[in-house]
Amino acid sequence: MVIVMKPEAEKKDIENILKYIKELGLTPHVIEGQERAVIGVIGDVSVLADKPVISMDGVENVVRISVPYKLASRMLKREDTVVKVDDVEIGGGNFVIMAGPCAVESYEQMIETARAVKKSGAKVLRGGAYKPRTSPYSFQGLEEEGLKILKQVGKEVGMLTISEVVDTQHVEKVAEYVDILQIGSRNMQNFQLLTEVGKAKKPVMLKRGLSSTIEEWLNAAEYIMKEGNYDVILCERGIRTFETYTRNTLDLNAVAAAKNLSHLPVIVDPSHGTGRRELIEPMSKAAVAVGADGLIIEVHPHPERALSDGAQSLTPVEFERVCREVKRILSAMK
Amino acid sequence: MVIVMKPEAEKKDIENILKYIKELGLTPHVIEGQERAVIGVIGDVSVLADKPVISMDGVENVVRISVPYKLASRMLKREDTVVKVDDVEIGGGNFVIMAGPCAVESYEQMIETARAVKKSGAKVLRGGAYKPRTSPYSFQGLEEEGLKILKQVGKEVGMLTISEVVDTQHVEKVAEYVDILQIGSRNMQNFQLLTEVGKAKKPVMLKRGLSSTIEEWLNAAEYIMKEGNYDVILCERGIRTFETYTRNTLDLNAVAAAKNLSHLPVIVDPSHGTGRRELIEPMSKAAVAVGADGLIIEVHPHPERALSDGAQSLTPVEFERVCREVKRILSAMK
Amino acid sequence: MVIVMKPEAEKKDIENILKYIKELGLTPHVIEGQERAVIGVIGDVSVLADKPVISMDGVENVVRISVPYKLASRMLKREDTVVKVDDVEIGGGNFVIMAGPCAVESYEQMIETARAVKKSGAKVLRGGAYKPRTSPYSFQGLEEEGLKILKQVGKEVGMLTISEVVDTQHVEKVAEYVDILQIGSRNMQNFQLLTEVGKAKKPVMLKRGLSSTIEEWLNAAEYIMKEGNYDVILCERGIRTFETYTRNTLDLNAVAAAKNLSHLPVIVDPSHGTGRRELIEPMSKAAVAVGADGLIIEVHPHPERALSDGAQSLTPVEFERVCREVKRILSAMK
Amino acid sequence: MVIVMKPEAEKKDIENILKYIKELGLTPHVIEGQERAVIGVIGDVSVLADKPVISMDGVENVVRISVPYKLASRMLKREDTVVKVDDVEIGGGNFVIMAGPCAVESYEQMIETARAVKKSGAKVLRGGAYKPRTSPYSFQGLEEEGLKILKQVGKEVGMLTISEVVDTQHVEKVAEYVDILQIGSRNMQNFQLLTEVGKAKKPVMLKRGLSSTIEEWLNAAEYIMKEGNYDVILCERGIRTFETYTRNTLDLNAVAAAKNLSHLPVIVDPSHGTGRRELIEPMSKAAVAVGADGLIIEVHPHPERALSDGAQSLTPVEFERVCREVKRILSAMK
Repeated sequence: MVIVMKPEAEKKDIENILKYIKELGLTPHVIEGQERAVIGVIGDVSVLADKPVISMDGVENVVRISVPYKLASRMLKREDTVVKVDDVEIGGGNFVIMAGPCAVESYEQMIETARAVKKSGAKVLRGGAYKPRTSPYSFQGLEEEGLKILKQVGKEVGMLTISEVVDTQHVEKVAEYVDILQIGSRNMQNFQLLTEVGKAKKPVMLKRGLSSTIEEWLNAAEYIMKEGNYDVILCERGIRTFETYTRNTLDLNAVAAAKNLSHLPVIVDPSHGTGRRELIEPMSKAAVAVGADGLIIEVHPHPERALSDGAQSLTPVEFERVCREVKRILSAMK
Repeated sequence: MVIVMKPEAEKKDIENILKYIKELGLTPHVIEGQERAVIGVIGDVSVLADKPVISMDGVENVVRISVPYKLASRMLKREDTVVKVDDVEIGGGNFVIMAGPCAVESYEQMIETARAVKKSGAKVLRGGAYKPRTSPYSFQGLEEEGLKILKQVGKEVGMLTISEVVDTQHVEKVAEYVDILQIGSRNMQNFQLLTEVGKAKKPVMLKRGLSSTIEEWLNAAEYIMKEGNYDVILCERGIRTFETYTRNTLDLNAVAAAKNLSHLPVIVDPSHGTGRRELIEPMSKAAVAVGADGLIIEVHPHPERALSDGAQSLTPVEFERVCREVKRILSAMK
Repeated sequence: MVIVMKPEAEKKDIENILKYIKELGLTPHVIEGQERAVIGVIGDVSVLADKPVISMDGVENVVRISVPYKLASRMLKREDTVVKVDDVEIGGGNFVIMAGPCAVESYEQMIETARAVKKSGAKVLRGGAYKPRTSPYSFQGLEEEGLKILKQVGKEVGMLTISEVVDTQHVEKVAEYVDILQIGSRNMQNFQLLTEVGKAKKPVMLKRGLSSTIEEWLNAAEYIMKEGNYDVILCERGIRTFETYTRNTLDLNAVAAAKNLSHLPVIVDPSHGTGRRELIEPMSKAAVAVGADGLIIEVHPHPERALSDGAQSLTPVEFERVCREVKRILSAMK
Repeated sequence: MVIVMKPEAEKKDIENILKYIKELGLTPHVIEGQERAVIGVIGDVSVLADKPVISMDGVENVVRISVPYKLASRMLKREDTVVKVDDVEIGGGNFVIMAGPCAVESYEQMIETARAVKKSGAKVLRGGAYKPRTSPYSFQGLEEEGLKILKQVGKEVGMLTISEVVDTQHVEKVAEYVDILQIGSRNMQNFQLLTEVGKAKKPVMLKRGLSSTIEEWLNAAEYIMKEGNYDVILCERGIRTFETYTRNTLDLNAVAAAKNLSHLPVIVDPSHGTGRRELIEPMSKAAVAVGADGLIIEVHPHPERALSDGAQSLTPVEFERVCREVKRILSAMK
């Protein structure tokens, strides 16, 4: 940690800070520059995390040198984390496709979708039972009934299942029905929920928040891992920018960066990430090429009748085509 | 609602849509342009909210004309909402100042702060008991113990109290201790939590999300009001932009816009909104001038020892000065 | 300047850097931390501005401590700059209103506008002769003919004039006709143009770029001042964010920050800054309260017939009202 | 075009607009909804481009249906544009790599770079002679001397050349020396410069502005094409977002979208787009997979001594590796 003093800081300000740093068991090093002084601090600076040094007299800025997350960091663990669920492995060179409708609507819709996407190569079936919707007047999901359908269909077809959990009170219940818990982007900094899924015995897929930095994303993973659940899968799903042509801006830079900074697997969601059906295929191929560990894609047998997000859902035929194209890039990557 | 067809849309695509619109009890009007057709839809188009018309063949875009929120809209209710708590009125020409530390740390800290800010004119005492922190290794708040201190101090000093609720399971408990429930910006789209505080019998202050549009903010208010709780106070606290000099970009445009679009009171938080102590006074004055109904400001007796957000906390002396300046602008506004 | 080494950096990497720093006449200070080393550099570090230390082996990051601009900085000159043009003073506690149409369309339009805005208190008449338009098919301005009209009307009515210059080849010509040269936001980093107006003998109003940081804005001012032209007026005109309700997000934080960081006067443009007529009055009042040195407002006698930006133009009657309201805040600020 | 009336608009407001629309030779269609009226307008609505209908009494909003650009649109020309320079073809299924240093520094630097990048497969040599730099105290380029070196080296090695033009007064001169003119992102809306290169007899590579929408980018291309120069190459080079880990956010969504909306070739610049050397390889591969027509990559024989942008420059060895990886993806795409 480096403490940058104001040019007008007085000698007693610096002395005051040095005393404070030493009291905390840390070692300060003062460097007197032409314009101002800076103070380097050595030792376990995490004890300073809650100390507002920046409010002390004469201080202009405090520059953190280390990243605040530990368990999620590749500095701690160099080899890729592989999340194993039954016979499916996510991360470490495996590539997994998850697919299904935005919302579970009925058994018929789910079984039709599941059979189709499994045939194309998907291993995990997605389907929302609790739907966070911007307007309270939009369809909010089938709730537990939806979870039952999802579980039933997953079993029948032979696929793993993933569904979003939106409230601390639902964690246990959702964990009973599905194989992977999903934290949605609007809840990426719902720290109570992160802590709760950290205690669950199921893998968690953590979507990046709409305007979260990569560091905040990894800090959110840290919340889950700190509770003992190390089976965390990151998911990039588009960030909010000034561009209005796409619903969000799918950020593949963050995928490459997260793979460098962390050992956790990273999945890409081109459906929410672009919000435009015609961009899903090219962005899926790009996600493979950038090094993602998998894709999660919205598929609906009849997008024009979907109760949620139809605009970005693929038909099974379109999805089949995306899978084919993705495999071509995958084999070139080997 | 206006449905914009693709230039290459076929006649049967249009007929298909017309049939569908009519089946829903709505009236379509086709306008054949030089390049393409557009279809105006008349009737209660809210039945279309969950229908993905945009996925139908030949459709390029769907333009919504009306706003999706109703109860929060000034079109529904022209006069200002005044939220009354005991003898304090918020909205409708009254100006209320809320102040206190980011986090409740001890009885001594709270009583010292409360006495000082009350003397300067604050009516509501703030203090976080459950703190959402970016890193799991930062101080997370005193929880129920903090609520007890807050209540005790509010009573002793004669101030209303406000504190953040971060989980559906805490709503009842927090509502027991405080006068106003706060929804933080990270939870603005935690729809379960919004629904839960909508059922509480306490006013709710709803902070705008870091990257929420004004419409999403009012939709979030709608979630609360839909449950029967009409005592909603909006709070602008800065949005996330590319600028790094300030912690956030306090968006006063949104304050003026929200006052036009909605009848709800709007409070401004210049502490989180700027994240820089020296900008709090000028932005507080600007908030008054733009028409805000109040301010919420972080004050700590000893910012350099604060366990959270010390960088942006004012001392009681600095706060006194801000209140004095604010009153000058207020009197000019009358 | 602080050089942050990678945790895995080797001893020879550090030695290599120390040697390099010393060769440049600077003094390095190594601080060996638990995880990694950091190197503080003392001396005139501006010689390092073009040296890519960050590319040297073992270096993770380079943290600049000082701001890169000098002439524009309040550290260099503590008292406010006052730009004087004839008997009008801009900055240093004076408040100046500039007004007029987006584009000069005709003598009649300009004389009608000028008489009205002067009566309401405006001292400077604005009017674009060269119009940067997003689409090549939009009205591009009357060019030199427009400048002639502007000058003629300014003289007749007794107002100063301001107009935008968009090309290095026009600087001399525009400077002949107007009292203040304007650099538009799209040209804020057109460095050739900045250099050219730096050589002109006329004050320059520099609009902040749509996505420019405050530091980049002050760097752009530095380009002008470096050529010897110290009469620079900054103008905040809204930044680009995710919000679509307003055309731009007028950033008053940046106004307060620029007043702290620099001695140059800062003008606010609520017309472009919000793009919505009904927000101009509240944001003008807020601009006064935050400490701006003036306003520039679009006024058109018949906004519905304006050839450019009619959506955000005030009528003379609306403008009169804004000026009256602004004066109330101004007198409270004294 | 659709005109949305305010709910409170009066009958005479609508009549007034209908009259105005008809006078312009267009046909209005009124649709009276429950809450408000909307007016569809048929005919060549481009005559309305400069008419501020939005300022007319009773109007709430005006929704444009068609895109404003024509020549750049794939609706006008369905087949891909192929820009031919000597024996190199850009667009239409060809993939071209451009490489070289950020700035031309010396003959030795250029010849060493050129030989290396040509060997790895690059066809076009890049090198800045006029450098737009944020700070006036940074290296500004060798100017004409740099152009001479670039031309000389291109000829010797047998490569095409590209260099940025930053001022209308330089267009003719730069066009004498190089094969492709580059418009930098800071000048994307320097409309005078766009018009001037539109008159030049050389292909133009147009970089997307830091905060330009895809539509603004295509409008900028339209400025060039309107002057008769149809050899326009688009270049995505990263947009400005809230993320600070990367220098910019390379937006591959925009590449896929631009390929859909326009027939022009699209090149990707991962060097500026990410600003981090370790992200260039994965993002280059992703660019190929998303359907880009080429790459432009910064290569410097000694990045640690580069006078500009060393942090993101590859060594020839690193570049060779990127080219090899890119070819694997390319062959899978066929």
